[in-house]
Amino acid sequence: MTTVSHSVISAAQLLAHWQGHRNLTRKLIEAYPEDQIFNYSIGDMRPFAELIMEIMDLSGGGVEGIVTGKWKVLDELSHVNGNYPKTKTEMLERWDAVTDQINNFWPQISLERYQENVMAFGAYEGSVYSTLLYVIDNEIHHRAQAYVYLRSLGITPPPFWDRY
Amino acid sequence: MTTVSHSVISAAQLLAHWQGHRNLTRKLIEAYPEDQIFNYSIGDMRPFAELIMEIMDLSGGGVEGIVTGKWKVLDELSHVNGNYPKTKTEMLERWDAVTDQINNFWPQISLERYQENVMAFGAYEGSVYSTLLYVIDNEIHHRAQAYVYLRSLGITPPPFWDRY
Repeated sequence: MTTVSHSVISAAQLLAHWQGHRNLTRKLIEAYPEDQIFNYSIGDMRPFAELIMEIMDLSGGGVEGIVTGKWKVLDELSHVNGNYPKTKTEMLERWDAVTDQINNFWPQISLERYQENVMAFGAYEGSVYSTLLYVIDNEIHHRAQAYVYLRSLGITPPPFWDRY
Repeated sequence: MTTVSHSVISAAQLLAHWQGHRNLTRKLIEAYPEDQIFNYSIGDMRPFAELIMEIMDLSGGGVEGIVTGKWKVLDELSHVNGNYPKTKTEMLERWDAVTDQINNFWPQISLERYQENVMAFGAYEGSVYSTLLYVIDNEIHHRAQAYVYLRSLGITPPPFWDRY
């Protein structure tokens, strides 16, 4: 007897979905003028560089934390302590390292774990699936703010569906 | 024998996740000054009202289309043809109607269907799960742009985690 198990989305599909979004975020970084990425903002918000650091901290540290149970505390995160690359090239290198970090740790999250609770970064309690969705959604949220920054600088960002 | 079936996220959990996001988007609409919601923008982008209409068109029409197989074509959508509420009150009423539309149709999407393909709005082919994620992600994306609009107007938006 064969049991067919249906699901909304598989773990591999969620990873592909996220890495698609991450491809787009990387294109936004590339589209940014070097000086503006570190300095430009609107309405006293943070420049895109700080938002990217937050995205990378939560993404790489989030997946690694879920797998290993070892979490950096907030003060150890680059977007909190300000210890991060100051060129676009180094930022893109770090981005690609986080891509590998996610790809390497992701298959170690067993299907059973998605419904279990974790205390992310020693501070945020929630299920594994909701923690991962928070990280992905937070990336979409902050990247969209960079869309407005870019538009206000007269630069056309890559389209939202361009995830390749 | 009991078979325990594990999943990344259940259909009910995905609905709750989305309605949480929709609660936050509704708060953004409420936080907006009446005149600015229809007129204010940055960098030649669309005002928030048009983005909200796109969100509502895709959300309600998306879920109903997936269930019924009946899709409005693009010209019939309010954010395309411009036929939409011109007050914040009417916009919030329509928002709440879409909330009910989603809640009513969602349980009619069987678990088997998430991996099947649809041609959304007669134009966009993809799996049911990726179509739904596109709609949810698109809401997060455009709402985040309204965060920048609000900040630039000196208004503090509700926090990103406020989904209740």
